[in-house]
Amino acid sequence: MTQSVRVQNFGVSRDGIGAGEDQTFEQPFGHVDPMELLGWGFATASFPSHEPGVGTRGFEDRLTRDFDHGIGAEIMGRHKFGHQRGPWTDDGWIGWWGEEPPFHTPVVVLTHYEREPLVVGETTFHFMNASPAEALARAKELAGGKDVRIGGGVTTVREFLDADLIDELHVSIAPVEYGHGLRLWERPEELEDRFHLEKVMAPSGVEHCFLWRR
Amino acid sequence: MTQSVRVQNFGVSRDGIGAGEDQTFEQPFGHVDPMELLGWGFATASFPSHEPGVGTRGFEDRLTRDFDHGIGAEIMGRHKFGHQRGPWTDDGWIGWWGEEPPFHTPVVVLTHYEREPLVVGETTFHFMNASPAEALARAKELAGGKDVRIGGGVTTVREFLDADLIDELHVSIAPVEYGHGLRLWERPEELEDRFHLEKVMAPSGVEHCFLWRR
Repeated sequence: MTQSVRVQNFGVSRDGIGAGEDQTFEQPFGHVDPMELLGWGFATASFPSHEPGVGTRGFEDRLTRDFDHGIGAEIMGRHKFGHQRGPWTDDGWIGWWGEEPPFHTPVVVLTHYEREPLVVGETTFHFMNASPAEALARAKELAGGKDVRIGGGVTTVREFLDADLIDELHVSIAPVEYGHGLRLWERPEELEDRFHLEKVMAPSGVEHCFLWRR
Repeated sequence: MTQSVRVQNFGVSRDGIGAGEDQTFEQPFGHVDPMELLGWGFATASFPSHEPGVGTRGFEDRLTRDFDHGIGAEIMGRHKFGHQRGPWTDDGWIGWWGEEPPFHTPVVVLTHYEREPLVVGETTFHFMNASPAEALARAKELAGGKDVRIGGGVTTVREFLDADLIDELHVSIAPVEYGHGLRLWERPEELEDRFHLEKVMAPSGVEHCFLWRR
């Protein structure tokens, strides 16, 4: 069975910024407002944690609906999991998402500081000090034959792109520019040597890029 | 748990024609060429029966990928199941799809001629002489808490629209006109009194309409 490695619903600005460098507990995306980048997803009915009847069911809902479809595991960078730096302390942190994270699968967290797995709701976080290829091999085992999502942040997606381990990406481009921050790309066309690129403009004003391996 | 009633990946021409009136065994869509209406789906990697590695993984692949996502049962008209008319004969017909139909769920087939259920691969066809509301009640039971897809053809979708039983529709509009045939609508805007309407143009030249209940 083929297991694809997918980036899903990853949001950047027109100048390719996905987050600020200056993450804190109060500002998980630093100077970048995540609602500017990902408000299109929040507006849809399938966004995690929405009550029934809340949200739109148009084109962009198909994208949020697809977030976990066929996904058996996620890989994320440590900063997507938390704002801490250095060795882990006993601070009770369980990730940004509260008691029921939206993943519902095993999640591999890349960190220089390994620790025991952490179970939160239906999600188990596995902490690995590993190369992208090693982390992916582990995530594929954990995924039970399903696909693996590279969940971000920007640095993690870049590492997996640089290691040529990604099969397809969906990246939304919000009509905003930041000038500085953590940059996925200058322009999506940079990846056209390795990926097909398709761009679709949503009525929301967000442009959705779909890339898949040539 | 909310069970939505959805039309998924239903294809019509610019003038709203989804099939010809003149169905035969040789031409399931009559004078209409289904590849003109649905070729956009066939081109994608998630189209049923494609081998791994075949097909695109862009915007329209998200739509074919969504075909059975969260769906627990389908309702179809008799002519989507076969070309026969009148009482069933013992002709060995198992539907158009061969030994492994792409539904993998219970399917309610609307017919004036009831008969015993037919199991083909992972799909069980239930033959009901029933109103749309009765058929939907049965399909919801069969769907195990998941959504119900109204699979077509045109006449069946129209009946469920007229009975106001549909929650959301995705309809693709191919850049072709037929002038006559089985018509879903003159224009999708006809439904705007009851549904939100969003239109997105795909790079393929097909326009995708998303409608959901107001």
